[in-house]
Amino acid sequence: MAKKRINVGLIGYQFMGKAHSNAYRQVGRFFDLPVEVGMHTLCGRNEAKVREAAEDYGWENVETDWRKVVENPEIDVIDISTPGNLHAEIAIAAAKAGKAVFCEKPIGNTLEEAEAMMAAVREAGVPNAVFHNYRKAPAAALVKRLIEEGKLGTIYHMRAVYLQDWIADPNFPLVWRLQKEVAGSGTHGDINAHIIDMARYLLGEFDEVVGLLHTFVKSRPLVSEIDASLGAKASQEMGEVTVDDAAMFLARFKNGALGTFEASRFAVGRKNHHRWEINGSKGSVVWDLEKMNELQYYSELDEAGTKGFRTIQVTEGDHPYAGHYWPVGHIIGYEHTFINLLADAFTNLAEGKPISPDMEDGLQNQRVLDAVERSSETKAWVKL
Amino acid sequence: MAKKRINVGLIGYQFMGKAHSNAYRQVGRFFDLPVEVGMHTLCGRNEAKVREAAEDYGWENVETDWRKVVENPEIDVIDISTPGNLHAEIAIAAAKAGKAVFCEKPIGNTLEEAEAMMAAVREAGVPNAVFHNYRKAPAAALVKRLIEEGKLGTIYHMRAVYLQDWIADPNFPLVWRLQKEVAGSGTHGDINAHIIDMARYLLGEFDEVVGLLHTFVKSRPLVSEIDASLGAKASQEMGEVTVDDAAMFLARFKNGALGTFEASRFAVGRKNHHRWEINGSKGSVVWDLEKMNELQYYSELDEAGTKGFRTIQVTEGDHPYAGHYWPVGHIIGYEHTFINLLADAFTNLAEGKPISPDMEDGLQNQRVLDAVERSSETKAWVKL
Amino acid sequence: MAKKRINVGLIGYQFMGKAHSNAYRQVGRFFDLPVEVGMHTLCGRNEAKVREAAEDYGWENVETDWRKVVENPEIDVIDISTPGNLHAEIAIAAAKAGKAVFCEKPIGNTLEEAEAMMAAVREAGVPNAVFHNYRKAPAAALVKRLIEEGKLGTIYHMRAVYLQDWIADPNFPLVWRLQKEVAGSGTHGDINAHIIDMARYLLGEFDEVVGLLHTFVKSRPLVSEIDASLGAKASQEMGEVTVDDAAMFLARFKNGALGTFEASRFAVGRKNHHRWEINGSKGSVVWDLEKMNELQYYSELDEAGTKGFRTIQVTEGDHPYAGHYWPVGHIIGYEHTFINLLADAFTNLAEGKPISPDMEDGLQNQRVLDAVERSSETKAWVKL
Amino acid sequence: MAKKRINVGLIGYQFMGKAHSNAYRQVGRFFDLPVEVGMHTLCGRNEAKVREAAEDYGWENVETDWRKVVENPEIDVIDISTPGNLHAEIAIAAAKAGKAVFCEKPIGNTLEEAEAMMAAVREAGVPNAVFHNYRKAPAAALVKRLIEEGKLGTIYHMRAVYLQDWIADPNFPLVWRLQKEVAGSGTHGDINAHIIDMARYLLGEFDEVVGLLHTFVKSRPLVSEIDASLGAKASQEMGEVTVDDAAMFLARFKNGALGTFEASRFAVGRKNHHRWEINGSKGSVVWDLEKMNELQYYSELDEAGTKGFRTIQVTEGDHPYAGHYWPVGHIIGYEHTFINLLADAFTNLAEGKPISPDMEDGLQNQRVLDAVERSSETKAWVKL
Repeated sequence: MAKKRINVGLIGYQFMGKAHSNAYRQVGRFFDLPVEVGMHTLCGRNEAKVREAAEDYGWENVETDWRKVVENPEIDVIDISTPGNLHAEIAIAAAKAGKAVFCEKPIGNTLEEAEAMMAAVREAGVPNAVFHNYRKAPAAALVKRLIEEGKLGTIYHMRAVYLQDWIADPNFPLVWRLQKEVAGSGTHGDINAHIIDMARYLLGEFDEVVGLLHTFVKSRPLVSEIDASLGAKASQEMGEVTVDDAAMFLARFKNGALGTFEASRFAVGRKNHHRWEINGSKGSVVWDLEKMNELQYYSELDEAGTKGFRTIQVTEGDHPYAGHYWPVGHIIGYEHTFINLLADAFTNLAEGKPISPDMEDGLQNQRVLDAVERSSETKAWVKL
Repeated sequence: MAKKRINVGLIGYQFMGKAHSNAYRQVGRFFDLPVEVGMHTLCGRNEAKVREAAEDYGWENVETDWRKVVENPEIDVIDISTPGNLHAEIAIAAAKAGKAVFCEKPIGNTLEEAEAMMAAVREAGVPNAVFHNYRKAPAAALVKRLIEEGKLGTIYHMRAVYLQDWIADPNFPLVWRLQKEVAGSGTHGDINAHIIDMARYLLGEFDEVVGLLHTFVKSRPLVSEIDASLGAKASQEMGEVTVDDAAMFLARFKNGALGTFEASRFAVGRKNHHRWEINGSKGSVVWDLEKMNELQYYSELDEAGTKGFRTIQVTEGDHPYAGHYWPVGHIIGYEHTFINLLADAFTNLAEGKPISPDMEDGLQNQRVLDAVERSSETKAWVKL
Repeated sequence: MAKKRINVGLIGYQFMGKAHSNAYRQVGRFFDLPVEVGMHTLCGRNEAKVREAAEDYGWENVETDWRKVVENPEIDVIDISTPGNLHAEIAIAAAKAGKAVFCEKPIGNTLEEAEAMMAAVREAGVPNAVFHNYRKAPAAALVKRLIEEGKLGTIYHMRAVYLQDWIADPNFPLVWRLQKEVAGSGTHGDINAHIIDMARYLLGEFDEVVGLLHTFVKSRPLVSEIDASLGAKASQEMGEVTVDDAAMFLARFKNGALGTFEASRFAVGRKNHHRWEINGSKGSVVWDLEKMNELQYYSELDEAGTKGFRTIQVTEGDHPYAGHYWPVGHIIGYEHTFINLLADAFTNLAEGKPISPDMEDGLQNQRVLDAVERSSETKAWVKL
Repeated sequence: MAKKRINVGLIGYQFMGKAHSNAYRQVGRFFDLPVEVGMHTLCGRNEAKVREAAEDYGWENVETDWRKVVENPEIDVIDISTPGNLHAEIAIAAAKAGKAVFCEKPIGNTLEEAEAMMAAVREAGVPNAVFHNYRKAPAAALVKRLIEEGKLGTIYHMRAVYLQDWIADPNFPLVWRLQKEVAGSGTHGDINAHIIDMARYLLGEFDEVVGLLHTFVKSRPLVSEIDASLGAKASQEMGEVTVDDAAMFLARFKNGALGTFEASRFAVGRKNHHRWEINGSKGSVVWDLEKMNELQYYSELDEAGTKGFRTIQVTEGDHPYAGHYWPVGHIIGYEHTFINLLADAFTNLAEGKPISPDMEDGLQNQRVLDAVERSSETKAWVKL
C-alpha cells in the first residue's frame, strides 16, 4: 500500500537550504517512515539560482514568491530557512494557511516576533518544529537517555561554549550575518542559541542569567559582491557592525544547577567548537560537535581505582539513531543531525503527535537570548 | 543540455550494497559531474529482499540473476559488491560484455582469481575501479598531497593497524566472513587489505614481507538462521573457522621505508580502529578512521620550541573533497568516502581517463596479501 | 668558594609544607643557584608530628611556636604554609622582623588582611614572594614568552576552569577547608585564585567582574577525628558549610579582552582540572595542569591547509625550566613547579631583584577575589 | 632506633647517573623505608667532572677507579650506570666482592656477557636488580594488577612502540650510542629493551620472534668535542654507524598471545613515545610514557551502550606508588619511576627478599634482544 505523501515547500536555499534539502532527500532512505516525503517546491528570490539549487538538491518545482508557496494547496509543510528577518512573516502566514511550520532557529529576530509566531501556530493548531538539530546527534540523545535513567544523578553544572573564528580577520566583510536588521544578532542568536537549546533539552528551564555581548571589530568593509564560488568580497567602503562578536553569560537553572555559556567568532583556531560538559552527582559527560560521534562519560559508579572519562563511540546499533546508518565505528556527519530531526518530525506528524523540538522550544530559547541581551544592557541579573 | 546518463547495475545489497547505493544516489548532489548517474538495476538472489532494498536505496529495477544484469545493454557499469567468491566470475563476464567494472576489495579470493580478472579487463579494455574508499577520505588525500609536495621528506616508517572486536566473543557464530571458501580470508583480505592499499597509495610498492596469520578461536557455533533485524543467530552445532582472526606483518618498501601492519578482530574495545602513522625526514602524519575528519601533522620546519603534532580539521574549502560538503568544522562521515570515490570515478570515466584506484591496484594489493599468506606458511620473508 | 647560605623557616607541614619542603631540598640539585638553601626550621603546633615531618622532609630543627621562628636571627626567609587565618599575623611579624616573606596563596583571608600584609612588607622593605606556582610550569612560562613575542597578537578571550570533585559526596565531612573562619573561602580562594593569577600573569589586570559563589551542600557531618593514614573521619553530628562549593565569574580586562572563570569542587570526574584557553588575533593556546608538560598551540601564521592546534611537549632543552631536568619527552610533575618558583626566587633574592610573583601579585589577586564576592552579594558588576 | 644504613656506590654520572642519584636522594623522603640509603661514592673517569656531579647530586665521596669502589668494604650496593661495554666486568667483580649489584639495562652488550653476569651473581648469591624502571610507573603497575585480577581475561595482543627522533638529522654526530663496541646496539638495546621488558612483565615469556634491524644513515660526522652545555659537536670527518636506527619484530608468546614491537630513532616528531596496547578477552589497556600518569582502560564488563576506553588518572591514593606523593590529579614525572624502583629494591633488600626486576629479568630480556638480532641476520623466525 502506498504511503501518504507529505509535500514540503522550502523557503531559502543557502547553507541551511542545502542541509535541509539533503535531509528531506535522505530521511526515507535510512528510516522506515510512515509517510512519503515529497520535495515539492524550493523558493528563493533569484530565479536562476533557485532553479539551479532545485536541480542540485532534488526539488520538483521552484518559486520566487514565498507567498505562493504558502498558499499552494498541494503543500503540507513550510520550511523556513531564510535569514531571520523573514521568519515571523512567513511563519504567521503559513500557520494561517493551515500548514505545518518547520522553522530555523532562532525563530525570530526579537522576542516579540517569536511570541507572535508562537501565537499564530497555537491559534491555527498546526504542527510545528524548530531546527535545533544538535539534539538529534546520537551522542546528545544518549546523554538525554543517561540523564533520564538517573545515571548522572543531580545535575550541578553545565559549561558550554560555541567557538568559531571565521570573522576574526578585521578585513572580513560586513555580510548579512553581521547586520542586526537582517540577522537579529551575531554569535548570540546564531550559536549561543544552540548551546542554550542543549541546556534546556538536558537540564530544563533557566531561572536567571547575567551576561554580556561584545563587538571586537566595530566597522568592516562593505560587501561589494557575492560570488558563490569565492565567498563574500570586500569593497573599499566601511560599514558599522551592528551585532555581537562574542556573547557570554552565567546562569542559574530552575533545578538548582549552575551554567556558563560562551559564544564567539573570535576564537582563533576554533572552527565549529560546540562543546559542553555536564557534571552531576553520579557522573559527568562531555560532548564536542567536531567529534560528534564520541561521548565522554564518567561514572562515579565504576569500580574504585578504575574510574575515568570513557570515550564512547556512539555508533552502536542500540544507540539513538545510529542503528539506521552503518556498523559500529563507521561515523556519521553533521548532515545526519538534520536527517534524524526529520525522521522524528515526520513520524510524529504522521502519528498526530507533537514534534520535539517545536515552536515552544524556539520561543523559550528566545526568552533566554532576550534575557541575556537585557542583562548586557542593564549590567544586572535578569530573571526568566 | 542534458548530461549523458551512465547506468549502473549493482550486484549485492548488504552492507557494501547499502554504502554504494547511497553513494550513487548522492554523488551528483554534491559534485557537478559531467554525466548523470543512473541507478538502473539492483541484483540479489532473494527477490523479496532485493526488491525491498531497491526501494529503500532508490534503484529503478531489480534482478535475481547477475548474468542478466551483465548482459543488459542498457547498463554501462557493473558494480560487484558480493562476497568474494563471486567476484572473479562476474568481473570476467562483465568485462567480456564490455561493461565498466567497479569491484569491491579484495578483488578476488585468491591471487589467481585476481590475475584472471585483471587479464579480462585489460583484454576487454574496459574502464575499471576498485573500492579502496579510504583513499578518498579528505585527510588521506591531504596526506598524499603533502607527500607529493615533499612536506614529509624521505619516508622512513609506516605503522598501520586495523583493529576490530566484533568476533572476540567465542560464541559469535560462524558467519560467511569466517568461511574461507566464501570470504577467501578473514581479517587479512577484509581489513589488512585496506591498510595495504593506504601504504601503496602513499609510499609505493612493497619489496618484501614477513608475517603471520592466526586463528584464536578455531571452532564456533554454526549460524542457524539469519534474521535481518537480529543479526546472525547461533545454533547448537559447531563448525570450523577456516580464516584468520588476526594477521600481522613487517615490510620493506621499494623506496627503503619500513612498515608494520596488523589487523585483528580480537582487539577488544576497538571498533573500527584503522589508524596509521607515517614518519618522514621532514615531518610525520597520523590518521585514524574513527576521527576521519582530523589529521595529525608534525612539521620539522616549524619554529624551534613550538613544534608539535597539529590536529588539522580537514574540513576546509580547499582541502580535498571537503569544499563540496559543509562549512569548516562540520564533519562528514564514513559514507562520504564512497561518494568521493564515485565522483572521481565518473569524472574520469566521462573524460576517458583511467580511474584510480583501479583493478591493477586491486591486483597489486592481492599480491601483497598473497605474499604475507605464503610467509605465514613458510615462516620466511617473501619477496614481491 | 662557598656560597652564602640562606636559611628558611617553614610554618606548616601538611600538603603545602610537604611540597615546599621538597622544593627547598631539590632546587639546588637541578639549578645552579648563587646561594645555598638552608632548611633550617620546620614549625607546627603538634610537636610529635612536626618532628616526624622534619625528619621525613629534611629539616634541621623543629619549633612549635611560629613566633620563635620569626624571631630566630639565624633564619632569613619565613615561608607561610599554614591555613589562611594565620597568614596575616605571621607575615606582618616576619616583615617587622626583617625577614623575607614567602607566602602561600591566597595571601589573606580577606582583602583587609592582604592589604595589611602588603603594607607591612612594603614598609619593612623585605623581599617577598607568593606561591602562585603554576606560573612556573614550563608550558605556562612558554605561553608568557609567546605572548611577549607577539605570537598570539591581540588577546580576545581567556576561558579558565579549575574543577575538582573531592567533596562532591555530601557525606564528606566538614574539614577546615570548608570553614570560612579558617579557610576564608572555599573554591574561590583555593582554586579560583590560581586561574585568576594565570590571567593576571598572561593578560594583565582585570577591569570589572560579575559572578556568583554557591554552596550546593549546606551542612555536612563534623569531623570526629583526623587520622593521617585514613583522612578525615565523619561524626554523627552535622555542621554548617560556610564557604562556597563553586564560584564563577565573567570578566573584562583592561586590555579589552573578555574572560570566563569557574571553580568547582562538584565537577564529578574532574580531579585537578586546571585548564585554560587563550585566543588572540594571531593564535591560541590551551593548557591543562593534568597534562602539564603539554601545550596546545594554534598559529594563524601556519601555512593554509595545514593549520591546527599543535601539542607541544614542553620538555625541550630551550623551553623554560625544562633544560634543568631530563631529556625531551621525559616529563616532570606537579612538584617541579615549586622547584622552579624557588629557583627564580632565590636567584632574585641573591641578586637583590624583586621576586615574581610577589606580595603585590597576591594583593591584586585578592582584589579580584574580593570583587567577585561582592558581585555575588550585590548581583551586580564590580569595577576593580 | 636508628635504621641500618645501606651504602651505595654509583658508577657513571651522566643521564642515568643523574636519574639514579635523584632517586637515591629522594626515595627515603617519600617512602618509609626499613633502611637508611647512604649516597656513599660516585665514580667516573674524569675527576673534575665527577666531583662536580657528586656535589650537584649529593654524593659523599668520589672515585675515578671503579675497582676501588667495588673493593670498598663500606659500600653495600654497586650501581652500574656506565655505557654497556663496562657492565659485565664491573658486575662480575662486584658480585665476587659480595656486593649487591644494581645494573642499568640492557645488562650486557651481548648475550654471552649477560649470561656471565647472571652466573656471577648467582654463584655469589648476592642481591641484584635491573633498572627496568618503567614497570614502576603507577599506571604500568596498575595494569599488572588488573591482569592478575583477571580484568583483561585471556590476552590476545600486545602492540608496543618506542619512538624517538633525536638522530633523524643525518648531520647528528656519531656519539657513543651509535657505536656498537660501546653501546652494543642502537635502538634495539636502548629502547626496544624497555618494551620487551614490559611484555615479559605483563604477558610472560616470548616463544618465538621474527624481526629486522635497520640503519637508515650509515655514516655520520665524528664527534669533535663534547661540550656539556652544547651537546655533542660534529667534526668534518665521517665515521661508520655500527648500530641500528630502527628495530622491529613480530612475536608469539608462550601464553598464545601475539605481539608487534618497534623501536626507532627516526620517527620525526616522536620524542619519547613509549606506547603499548594490550587486548584481552575482557578488556584492553593503552599506556603512553609521555602521558605516564594516565591509563586508557576498556572493560567489556561495562554496561552495554556506555562502553569505551576510560582515561584513568593513576594518581589516586590507592593506586600503586601514587599515595606516597601528591593528592589525586597532581602528577609525578619520569624521575619517580626510579624512586619507586628503589623503594621496592631497598625494601626487599632489607627483608632479604629477591628484588624485581632482577638480573634474571635482564638476562631473559637479552635473550629476546639476541633472538631478534639473529632473526634479522637469518631472515627467519627464531625460537626462544
